[in-house]
Amino acid sequence: MTKIDDLPIRDELRGQSPYGAPQLDVPVQLNTNENPYPLPEPLVARIAERVAEAARTLNRYPDRDAVELREGLAAYLTRTTGHPVTREQVWAANGSNEVLQQLLQTFGGPGRTALGFEPSYSMHALISRGTGTGWISGPRNEDFTVDLDAARAAIAERRPNVVFICSPNNPTGTAVAAETVLALYDAAQAAGPSIVVVDEAYVEFSHRASLLPLLAGRPNLVVSRTMSKAFGAAGLRLGYLAADPAVVDAVQLVRLPYHLSAVTQATALACLEHTDTLLGYVAQLKAERDRLVDALRGLGLEVTDSDANFIQFGRFADTHAVWEAILAHGVLVRDNGVPGWLRVTAGTPAENDAFLDAVRNALPSPTPTLDRARFARAASQEL
Amino acid sequence: MTKIDDLPIRDELRGQSPYGAPQLDVPVQLNTNENPYPLPEPLVARIAERVAEAARTLNRYPDRDAVELREGLAAYLTRTTGHPVTREQVWAANGSNEVLQQLLQTFGGPGRTALGFEPSYSMHALISRGTGTGWISGPRNEDFTVDLDAARAAIAERRPNVVFICSPNNPTGTAVAAETVLALYDAAQAAGPSIVVVDEAYVEFSHRASLLPLLAGRPNLVVSRTMSKAFGAAGLRLGYLAADPAVVDAVQLVRLPYHLSAVTQATALACLEHTDTLLGYVAQLKAERDRLVDALRGLGLEVTDSDANFIQFGRFADTHAVWEAILAHGVLVRDNGVPGWLRVTAGTPAENDAFLDAVRNALPSPTPTLDRARFARAASQEL
Repeated sequence: MTKIDDLPIRDELRGQSPYGAPQLDVPVQLNTNENPYPLPEPLVARIAERVAEAARTLNRYPDRDAVELREGLAAYLTRTTGHPVTREQVWAANGSNEVLQQLLQTFGGPGRTALGFEPSYSMHALISRGTGTGWISGPRNEDFTVDLDAARAAIAERRPNVVFICSPNNPTGTAVAAETVLALYDAAQAAGPSIVVVDEAYVEFSHRASLLPLLAGRPNLVVSRTMSKAFGAAGLRLGYLAADPAVVDAVQLVRLPYHLSAVTQATALACLEHTDTLLGYVAQLKAERDRLVDALRGLGLEVTDSDANFIQFGRFADTHAVWEAILAHGVLVRDNGVPGWLRVTAGTPAENDAFLDAVRNALPSPTPTLDRARFARAASQEL
Repeated sequence: MTKIDDLPIRDELRGQSPYGAPQLDVPVQLNTNENPYPLPEPLVARIAERVAEAARTLNRYPDRDAVELREGLAAYLTRTTGHPVTREQVWAANGSNEVLQQLLQTFGGPGRTALGFEPSYSMHALISRGTGTGWISGPRNEDFTVDLDAARAAIAERRPNVVFICSPNNPTGTAVAAETVLALYDAAQAAGPSIVVVDEAYVEFSHRASLLPLLAGRPNLVVSRTMSKAFGAAGLRLGYLAADPAVVDAVQLVRLPYHLSAVTQATALACLEHTDTLLGYVAQLKAERDRLVDALRGLGLEVTDSDANFIQFGRFADTHAVWEAILAHGVLVRDNGVPGWLRVTAGTPAENDAFLDAVRNALPSPTPTLDRARFARAASQEL
């Protein structure tokens, strides 16, 4: 039987494994930051209606420029941020992963580099490598905020062509202040000029406002977004960006023609029609996220301040053992490889209760909360 | 206003324009090799049904490995070629463009090269460049068949990492004989080993059998396919490949995770349920294609033998003037930049009649057929 390494693949792919969270069939799945609320039935019906309409001309190529969809996304951004955005400033693709890939093909690529502050969304590094872009791991503080002085020094020294700022950051939940983004943008322009990509996949769950208004007068700034989280449509694979119209023109030099199917465009448009309902779920999830933070801290665990629909909690001497113990109680959380920390997605109230029960049971002492708290502290270690 | 070239884009993108056929609003559009038959209403209803089902779990990520869809595509290939194909041999993505991009990221990329026999599907060269793969333009005979001796010599000399064989070839319509493919595969293994990609986007319209059975015992051979043409689903963006399971494993090292949306998978599965109806349209289109070939030859024009749902016709001293004259009669055909030749897609009988009328009128002589034929010969030139 032929194996991958028997094929004439690129050298840097030898011995690698495909990226992806383990997919296990357990009752409570809180490992991939999905929205736990299924789309409401009226929206399901509207999707069926709009897709049927699109299917009647499915023999034709889709709108290559996704004009109606970009118009709808621009209206959504304008309405929710108060910052006017036009469709000429918006571009959409199959998930923010494809948006980021197109950006890296345009502004990164062979002989160029991208920098991100790790730990962060691991696809930033992976898509950089996949597009031949050199990857530079930038610094963070102990509390996972961006160390501004160290970050500016790294940008000045390494002069990356693309800088990623993930806010709120995955997997830590940490938001980045507007002043920090501005300082990094200025540093990147002085060293580059470079493109600064603010990944706002989780921004609808944040205590802070979107960084979108910073786009004004900054042609090298890009804000990326997704319908996977706030819109509860991870299965749709619809990512988008807002930026200067010139950036939108530029990515069209590298995008595969007709990259976005007519059914994807139709489904996304249907979801946009139901924005208010979906943002209602977001409000519920923010409240649940805050409840989880309090409850975990009440158990004596450390919790990184979260502006997302997930929480980083720890710290554990044996992270994998805790992950397994929680799994043994039917709850799947994520070990993102940040030593000492695990990540849990905010689910429905019932799912979150199940998770909290699992954590209580995973901590070995059957004694009262105070002792469990003491255990958790003892179990953690400076990492 | 910021322009593309004001941005820090890659040098090789400066001054470029996005790829894509001109989209003009004319009554008869025979320029992008679309299937003229809309999906039948029962299939539209089934798509709505399956998409609604998928939409009920759209808050979750799609099946990352598209298992059910690959199973369905494998069954389709097995049934229509008589060659047994399993789902482990099949991979799917957003259009064959994304399939080819993944193949080039895996087997091409910076420091590597790909070779194709031009004129051919221009995305082979464009996606090669987009992935940092050097492009080598291989030779064809005057009649657009592959010049085997010259091709073998080019492969031996240039040692490309990826060889594209488009059969039937776009834009010429030319099919490639199995013996030729085998000879090129052997040459590529001797020079490489290299991956040989047979692009069979139009194979369902061919007089010849699929080259799929050649996969047996050839791990470096890949056959790419699409649902855009025979399945009449260009708007769906569903491309796929069949190859050794190791190739399928290998492209998963570079594919973006969750690249294929749940609505795309659901729609493709619905289309597969209606294969027989859709292949009935293919049979009609083949007959229409043959009628068009005869009619154009009857007008004294040259027509390249076609195994596709389109026809290359000529030859014209001023190709653009003829393209415009046909357009002036409300019919849009394609100027692919092959000097002296135009390409027309086989449409419905009424569309094809409109096209033939437009051609008759575009040829300036109002005299009988014989004179028009003489004109066409006079207008052509050795190119």
